[in-house]
Amino acid sequence: MTTQQLIDQIKKKQSFLCIGLDVDLNKIPKHLLKEEDPIFAFNKAIIEATHHLCVAYKPNTAFYEAYGIKGWQALEKTINYLNKNHPEIYTIADAKRGDIGNTSTMYAKAFLEDLGFDSVTVAPYMGKDSVEPFLAFKDKHTILLALTSNQGAFDFQTKSVDGVELYKQVLETSKSWKNAENLMYVVGATKAEFLADIRKIIPESFLLVPGVGAQGGNLQEVCKYGMNKSIGLLINSSRGIIYASQDGDFAEAAAQKAEELQLQMSEILSL
Amino acid sequence: MTTQQLIDQIKKKQSFLCIGLDVDLNKIPKHLLKEEDPIFAFNKAIIEATHHLCVAYKPNTAFYEAYGIKGWQALEKTINYLNKNHPEIYTIADAKRGDIGNTSTMYAKAFLEDLGFDSVTVAPYMGKDSVEPFLAFKDKHTILLALTSNQGAFDFQTKSVDGVELYKQVLETSKSWKNAENLMYVVGATKAEFLADIRKIIPESFLLVPGVGAQGGNLQEVCKYGMNKSIGLLINSSRGIIYASQDGDFAEAAAQKAEELQLQMSEILSL
Repeated sequence: MTTQQLIDQIKKKQSFLCIGLDVDLNKIPKHLLKEEDPIFAFNKAIIEATHHLCVAYKPNTAFYEAYGIKGWQALEKTINYLNKNHPEIYTIADAKRGDIGNTSTMYAKAFLEDLGFDSVTVAPYMGKDSVEPFLAFKDKHTILLALTSNQGAFDFQTKSVDGVELYKQVLETSKSWKNAENLMYVVGATKAEFLADIRKIIPESFLLVPGVGAQGGNLQEVCKYGMNKSIGLLINSSRGIIYASQDGDFAEAAAQKAEELQLQMSEILSL
Repeated sequence: MTTQQLIDQIKKKQSFLCIGLDVDLNKIPKHLLKEEDPIFAFNKAIIEATHHLCVAYKPNTAFYEAYGIKGWQALEKTINYLNKNHPEIYTIADAKRGDIGNTSTMYAKAFLEDLGFDSVTVAPYMGKDSVEPFLAFKDKHTILLALTSNQGAFDFQTKSVDGVELYKQVLETSKSWKNAENLMYVVGATKAEFLADIRKIIPESFLLVPGVGAQGGNLQEVCKYGMNKSIGLLINSSRGIIYASQDGDFAEAAAQKAEELQLQMSEILSL
């Protein structure tokens, strides 16, 4: 999907919500465990209840790998279902991969070509030649970890590198990489005030913002500092939406939580 | 496996060789493609030909994910085969994972508990709470990326953070994490002279050293600067061994290359 197609979808739906499909069999409604593939059954129900309220879905691969072969089958079924039934939806493989060049190419091919995701998250620690193989795919995005939403972000990411925080070095340096126009960045919402500085370095890029909801970030603050003229934000919520209820009404409850966020987004977009 | 068991195996075999099982269907002998599971057939033959010459095997997960479900099945069969038939061998899932706390726990469980690897490689960018969930597993190791062997290592890892290179900050900081005794580190062999400084920070830890062979590192140099009183080194070679021949004699050719390295190691250990 092109960036413009994503922007068009955001304007049409008046939403820049991304829903994290982080499925934990201990947290889904008990009656689904009787299904042949409980993870896919859960995802399908969540997607059907919420696809008109969000523009993107983001399965975190850890939750699928945790169930071995069955988990990978559920991931494959989920992305195939989305691409077939809701091709307008933007899809993110939250895999946080990154390796030496030829190995990164294998990850990129697996997620962007074989599975058919629109984008994949990548860790920047190994530098340019570990990220550029992902950037080589046309009309696909590489979402680089910049400033994450966990406490450990302060261990290295915010440390000063030659006078500038490491995450800002990552932003600045990555701009010079080949096909940098295919980059987006992960920026945690728990540090909304950092977004003003971030926008000075990457005014145009889309930001994937986790941490609104369960991790305590504030939507209005994030938009105030992070929004650009093409919106430029994907706000992710996972647990706050998909586990809104653990009973028979889980899909409706998820839709209600998604709608609350979508209405706030619609209001912000109309300002 | 405990660190002591690994050291005992090194002394017994007079080898600190790790063989990277990075299986690419375009590079394995053509006759194996007729097998039901060519990847596993290749790994099994390589393992049977080389297990007395090395102490560890390291499949890089990218090469398996690239083949989807079939790739994961081959990875599962390979680790099960090793654990059943060669339980003395140390196993490394080269996965380079890392995520926020509860998600890292899922990755750790998948690789260390469900698949049953002795260790997993982890990227440090997200800091303490992204790594500690891996460290919580008893008699398992977390191999943290410090200084990688690719060109991109110079983009961020060697940059000065408050006067000290980032990779040295990673080494220093990680020493204070909970269960830090379960840490090992990836240090690329292409910068052997850096090993002297690294040993000042982490004198006791094991180092996993890629880049000997295909990536140009030199075994004698690495041992001169990196070896400690418990040896403290695992030298990885992948392509140089497993693709020594692409014909019917591939396993024998791999054994020959492995033996060349083992003999050099034996000589170094006898000094």
